[in-house]
Formats: sequence, C-alpha cells, structure tokens
Amino acid sequence: MKKFINATDDYLAESLAGFAAVHAGLVRLGDGGAFVARAVKATGKVALISGGGSGHEPLHAGFVGSGMLDAACPGQVFTSPTPDQMLAAAQDVGGPEGLLFIVKNYSGDRMNFEMAAEMLADLGGGPVATIVTDDDVAVTDSTWTTGRRGVAGTLIVEKIVGAAAEEGRDLATLAALGEEVNRRTRSMGVALTSCTVPAAGRPTFDLGAGDIEMGVGIHGEPGRRRVALQPAKVIAEEMLEAIDADLKAGGFAPGAIILLVNGFGGTPAGELYLMAEMARRDLMARGYSIARALVGNYVTALDMAGCSLTVARVDDALLKLWDAPVTTPTLHW
Amino acid sequence: MKKFINATDDYLAESLAGFAAVHAGLVRLGDGGAFVARAVKATGKVALISGGGSGHEPLHAGFVGSGMLDAACPGQVFTSPTPDQMLAAAQDVGGPEGLLFIVKNYSGDRMNFEMAAEMLADLGGGPVATIVTDDDVAVTDSTWTTGRRGVAGTLIVEKIVGAAAEEGRDLATLAALGEEVNRRTRSMGVALTSCTVPAAGRPTFDLGAGDIEMGVGIHGEPGRRRVALQPAKVIAEEMLEAIDADLKAGGFAPGAIILLVNGFGGTPAGELYLMAEMARRDLMARGYSIARALVGNYVTALDMAGCSLTVARVDDALLKLWDAPVTTPTLHW
Repeated sequence: MKKFINATDDYLAESLAGFAAVHAGLVRLGDGGAFVARAVKATGKVALISGGGSGHEPLHAGFVGSGMLDAACPGQVFTSPTPDQMLAAAQDVGGPEGLLFIVKNYSGDRMNFEMAAEMLADLGGGPVATIVTDDDVAVTDSTWTTGRRGVAGTLIVEKIVGAAAEEGRDLATLAALGEEVNRRTRSMGVALTSCTVPAAGRPTFDLGAGDIEMGVGIHGEPGRRRVALQPAKVIAEEMLEAIDADLKAGGFAPGAIILLVNGFGGTPAGELYLMAEMARRDLMARGYSIARALVGNYVTALDMAGCSLTVARVDDALLKLWDAPVTTPTLHW
Repeated sequence: MKKFINATDDYLAESLAGFAAVHAGLVRLGDGGAFVARAVKATGKVALISGGGSGHEPLHAGFVGSGMLDAACPGQVFTSPTPDQMLAAAQDVGGPEGLLFIVKNYSGDRMNFEMAAEMLADLGGGPVATIVTDDDVAVTDSTWTTGRRGVAGTLIVEKIVGAAAEEGRDLATLAALGEEVNRRTRSMGVALTSCTVPAAGRPTFDLGAGDIEMGVGIHGEPGRRRVALQPAKVIAEEMLEAIDADLKAGGFAPGAIILLVNGFGGTPAGELYLMAEMARRDLMARGYSIARALVGNYVTALDMAGCSLTVARVDDALLKLWDAPVTTPTLHW
C-alpha cells in the first residue's frame, strides 16, 4: 500500500484537520472532529445533516456551506459514523425549524441515523425527517445494503434540497422534495482498479490486469459483471442503457437532465472529460438534453480508478434550485 | 493499460470536446481544437495565452476565463503544442494591447512559443512578451529541460498576472509581475506511482512496490532520489526543506505564503488534505504563515499517484490579485 499517510489510526483525524484548516473561512470541526459544520451557523431554516463513512471525499464535508449542508458526520474509512456524532451535529446546528437527515442507503448508516433520531426525540428535540438516497441501478441488495445503494446522486439531492432549505421551506416540503429528486436520479459506476482501505493495507478486491467491474459500488462492492476492458464509448453505453431503462421504468421519459460524471479518485480529469463526451453523445441519441453537467471527483472510493455516471431528470423548478448560489469547499457558484 | 479511452489517436480530441461541451458557457474551442479560448472574447486588455502538452489537466484550459487566461493551447499528451496553434490563438484573442505568453520551462514549449512570436512579428502583429516559469526546485536540467522545470507554480503566476491583466495593466508591467511571482514561487513533487501515456501503453518509468520518486517531474522525469516510502510527515518535511532553503537562497525570508497542495491525478482528496496538514504544521514551524491554501488536482501527470507542494511568498499586493474574482472552469471565486 502506497499512500500519503502516517499511522492508519491517525489518517482520518489528520486529513480532517487539513480540510478544516484549508477551508477555515467556510467550515469548522465540531466536537473534536465528530462533525464538520458551517463556520457560521445558519438560523431560521431547517438544518440539513448528512454523513457516512470516510473515503468518499469531498462527499459529504465538501458540501457543507451556504446553499447546501449545515453539517456532515465523517465515519472512519468506509464505516458508518456513530449515532453520537449525528447527535452532536444535530444539537449544534439544529433549530426550531427541525432537522433533515440525508442518508445514503447502507444498513449501518440507516441504523445509526435512526438511532440518532430516537436519541434526539428522547431528549425532547425538535422534528426530524430523513431522506434515504438509493440511486445506484447496478444491483439490488449488496454487501452492506438492502435494496439499492446510495451513491453519487446524493450530491444532487444535497444541492437541490440545500437550496430549497436556504429559501426557508419547511421540513415536510424538503423531505418530499428530496424523495422526488432521488426518484428522478439514477447512477451506475465502473471500476478499472480496486481501492485500498488504509487499515486493511491491501486492495479490497482483485481485478485482472485487463478487466473492469461494471456496476461497482463506492466501497468496491461487486457490480453486475466483470468484463474485459471495453472502449470508453461502449462502457458509457452500457451504463446509460441501464440508467435510461430504469428511468423509463420509473415513469420518466427522456428530457432535460443534470449529468454528473464522477471520478472515483484515481482517474484523471482528461479521462473523465472523455467519458463526459461519450455520455453526451449517447444521451443525445436517446433523446435527453443536458441542461447542466458536472465533471470531477465528487463521490470517490479512495484511490479507485473508475467513474460513475449520474442522470437526474429535472424540470425548470429543480434546475432553478440547482442553479441557486452555493458556497462550500467543493461546489461554489 | 486501463484507461477510459477509445483509440489513442482520438484521446485528446474527444477529451477536449467533452471539456468544451461541459463548460460551454465559459469557453469555446478555436480552430478545430487548436486552442481553448474564453466564450466571450475580452477586449481592452493584454491577452494571456498559455499552453503545453496535455495530460496535466486542468492546466491550462481549466484556467481560461475572466480573471485568468484568454486562451490555452493543448498539445498532444506530454508534447508541446505547435507554433501554428499558438499563432491561431494569438490571432483570435490578441488586440492592440499586446500578448503575454506564459510558458513552462521545457525546451519544446519555449522553442515553439518563440517561433510563434516570430511568426506574429513577421505578420506585423502587436507587441508580445513571454514569462517562463521554472518553479521546480528538485533538479536543474532534466529530461526535456535546460534549467529548472516549470510545474504547479505556473497556476499561481497565471492567476495573479491574470487578475492584473483584467485591471488593464500594460504588457511590460504584466511581464515584470509574472517574473516577480515566478521568483517568489517554489515547488517540489513526489511520485508514488508512474503515469502511463496513452500512446505508449505502459508506465513511463518503473518504481518498486515500496518506493517513491522524490522530486519527480510532471511527466515522470527523474527527481532527486528514489527512496522507500516514508510517513507523509517525513515526505512533506523533505519537500519543504528544499523549498524553504531555495526561497532563502533567493532572498526571501519566511512570511506570508500561498500554499498549493497539488495532486498528480491518481491521489484522492483525503490524502491531499492530510498532506496539507503536514505541510501546514511544517511551514508554521519554519515561520511561514499560510495566507491562502488550495488543495486539489490542478497540475497533473495523467494518472500518477503523487503530489507536489508549492509555496509562493506573497505580499499584500500579490494577495489582493490572488483574491480578485476569477471565473474559469476550474478556479471560480
């Protein structure tokens, strides 16, 4: 294992310390690193809290800031944050308008956010609602998931609901909006290499020198099939065929979309833009129009080479929320 | 070789097409992909043109836009752009205020930008000045370089001179400013893995499973020494010791700096932030104060795992130019 690291036990704390120092004007570490919150607490709005295992940076801490999240709870690498972390974040950023938890569909994350909600209720806290994202069309049920996995589409839910929260919409409205965005969003990933969890010290899975894992999860969970490397065009087509079919099965005809071409951490920008071009050509041929596109490393899997494609079928109202100002360490417009 | 690619001959054109489509509001492709220019041509200012071999994305095309470059010429991967490309860009974005070429110190780049300047003079074009960046302290003379290599510090030169150009400063002033920023800027890189040029299909150099290349260039050129992997803290110290000594040799005492922690393409954000924390601690102990910091993949070497540290010793006037608004595909504030 070759990584920029000192001791594996210190990896997360040292990385978070760097993140907080670099973005000190935007975020702060709370409760000794239990959560990342906005540097200046927002009031008069529903507070959005997300979180999950580390190793997916910039998700979620990179999306803390005006127009997006109020706090993010980073677990150890590929490990759910604890209910205590979520409770600490909730008590810090919550107000009378209530809390919205945005949770990727992994059993550990769901259980711990649920426990945190119960602990808050026991303490007489305000209203709490939860959105669960499950945008990955590759497989149903997986290593750590019942149902579909929540992956890069979570970024789109966080951005759109974050903008609506900033406008002062109430908790029930925001929860319904988040569910609506999740229903309109589909993703699929592909790995060219495995990733290596620092504490494990060796690759999470074995992949032949000429093979790719089609439909991989963001922790290296198995996808649909292992296949020899294909041209980028063919890879994009297989992913978008699955996404397109699933959107149609959900009742969404081709139309305006947000396209996210997401790198998993080890794939350089030049290749991601090439995949964006392959996706663009394919989606246009299927009758979609790309209203907005985002290309880069946003929801990663440590050092995995690979990428995912996410398509969110949007209307004008959702696009307006997407376009609303956002000031976070990662998204900024 | 596992990459998102169709045919190696199409790699650059397809990647550029994706880049231009995704950032259509900000940039356009000129002359069939010979250069990337601002979507809306700026007038009444000196035009800044940079360029170099591809494979370092987002450098330089990601820095085209208001407050930074007017155009960038992408060569084939790790290959200088041609004088014709620079000429086409110059004729498109140039005006009576003149042109400033920002050139990383590689023999091919310097020769071709020089030829373009001569061709422009033959055509009766306006005034042209050139800034050559050579911020890499690792080695003097290298595979494709006489003198020091120009690496990630080029971003800092482009940002600061870009802001000054936007204010309407004249060509001679901008050229002097660029030289001043270059003199104040030092970088050093380290590779954990090689990179693979698409057309070559195999790693540029061999690096043992437990080894790193200290002082590597952004094309995988040899550095100072090959050594067993060290803790991140030790790696950062060796790089910053070299940078600090070189700044002092140049007459710059510790003080306010811009710190750039730059990923080479294959290293994930979590590790880069950890390196930022190691750099921060080391620099503070040396008496530097980090006025601004930037962490991410900005000047890459294809899929290389590794990073570089860049320190620019700034004063208030330079910081003000750094902070000035910038609207490009990559930098945006």
